[in-house]
Amino acid sequence: MRIALGIEYAGDAFQGWQSQAHGRTVQDHLEAALATIAGHSVRLHCAGRTDSGVHATAQVVHFDTPSVRPLYGWVRGVNNQLCSHVAVRWAVDVGEDFHARFCAVSRRYRYIMHNAPVRPALLAGRVGWFHPPLDEAAMIEAARCLEGWHDFSAFRAAGCQAKSPVKLMHEARVHRAGEYLIFDFWANAFLHHMVRNLVGALVYVGKGRYPPAWMAEILAARDRSQAGLTFPADGLYLCGVEYAPHWPLPGEGRIIAVPRIPFV
Amino acid sequence: MRIALGIEYAGDAFQGWQSQAHGRTVQDHLEAALATIAGHSVRLHCAGRTDSGVHATAQVVHFDTPSVRPLYGWVRGVNNQLCSHVAVRWAVDVGEDFHARFCAVSRRYRYIMHNAPVRPALLAGRVGWFHPPLDEAAMIEAARCLEGWHDFSAFRAAGCQAKSPVKLMHEARVHRAGEYLIFDFWANAFLHHMVRNLVGALVYVGKGRYPPAWMAEILAARDRSQAGLTFPADGLYLCGVEYAPHWPLPGEGRIIAVPRIPFV
Repeated sequence: MRIALGIEYAGDAFQGWQSQAHGRTVQDHLEAALATIAGHSVRLHCAGRTDSGVHATAQVVHFDTPSVRPLYGWVRGVNNQLCSHVAVRWAVDVGEDFHARFCAVSRRYRYIMHNAPVRPALLAGRVGWFHPPLDEAAMIEAARCLEGWHDFSAFRAAGCQAKSPVKLMHEARVHRAGEYLIFDFWANAFLHHMVRNLVGALVYVGKGRYPPAWMAEILAARDRSQAGLTFPADGLYLCGVEYAPHWPLPGEGRIIAVPRIPFV
Repeated sequence: MRIALGIEYAGDAFQGWQSQAHGRTVQDHLEAALATIAGHSVRLHCAGRTDSGVHATAQVVHFDTPSVRPLYGWVRGVNNQLCSHVAVRWAVDVGEDFHARFCAVSRRYRYIMHNAPVRPALLAGRVGWFHPPLDEAAMIEAARCLEGWHDFSAFRAAGCQAKSPVKLMHEARVHRAGEYLIFDFWANAFLHHMVRNLVGALVYVGKGRYPPAWMAEILAARDRSQAGLTFPADGLYLCGVEYAPHWPLPGEGRIIAVPRIPFV
């Protein structure tokens, strides 16, 4: 039997998604909790391997098990075994053909930036912070050129293992909500550090170092060294993974995901 | 010279406001950071001594110092000495007559409850959680009787040191924002655990255990043993302290405070 789960976690409580020998990752915590309910060791596959410090409101994973449990057991039972900063939100019985990573048709990431003179305290580790005022109109204009099929090599980390740097960006949007700037990216897939690098370049535009048209130039140049800063993971959320509608997944893992971030 | 500061902190990172021998309180962290900037030991007085786990977006404190520093030194300089979960938001030079506690004419507290089947992970420690559906219309009605001058003994913790249980509740409001229930209380002063006890009683009404009119009955009975649960500190925020308008304080510490909670 193959079970898919929707997962929420606070990235600052873990050292990334992917299993490590030290065991302090989201995958390690989840696999240990699932093993106690399943009665055997469990191997998880996820839709998006988030880096250390990156949060998720709607990560999707799957695993195989011969153990028959009521679906709420994979939610409430597992949650009882987990520490407070990670939770299973839903569980569904999917067919053997489902794969959390390979069947995902797109992902959504949101970056939240606190744009204010004083650093955040309540949301430390949960938002990025940039002190000087940022011009959102310039950033909105700059983000527009990112939509469509593009070679995103300019925003790709050195160690990125993706087969191709060409991705389809469905939407790249920026808006302001008071002291917060919200960057929303929806693409078929993302390169390593791509969102944090995109935010870094947009901030260069927002503070007036470059005009909005510079964004299209560095995208076309495909040269990482020209494209600016990698912003900290603190403000980054994996907030949606889409699958074809024939999979029996609830709202967050369906074709249109609603970013479920309870602030901003 | 007397300096007043506006302070924000994540209560789950500390063991309450008030100084303890172990040093893991907000007051201990702040006094140590201020001492490095002032060049002498500093004693803080605060508007509201929050319990362990209680957050603040707009705590107000004052201290005396013979050291002359630019005001931004008491903000940025001190913030550089503090851990990430507490920050000074503003500093002003107030007269010797100002006292953060005794001059405060009212306080505002907000309680945020996640009312959903699955426990929160991203906001663990930052919101309360209640699983069964709550009827906000009943709670809105029940909260109304709390406004005005009342003896709040029914909602007073055993160890409370307040001279009188009679307080003026300017506003007691409940509203829903999606999966979140927001409880806002504005009063001249609060008894120990008063907000958490009020929330406990309102939840009894919200889940239908008692009708809205029960709230006025237990208030009148002045008997703690009848008034239900004390809710966890997780969802509680000190989000406003008001002073008379002649004090030179910025927005958050003035006569009308704006609750500065970046989510909900």
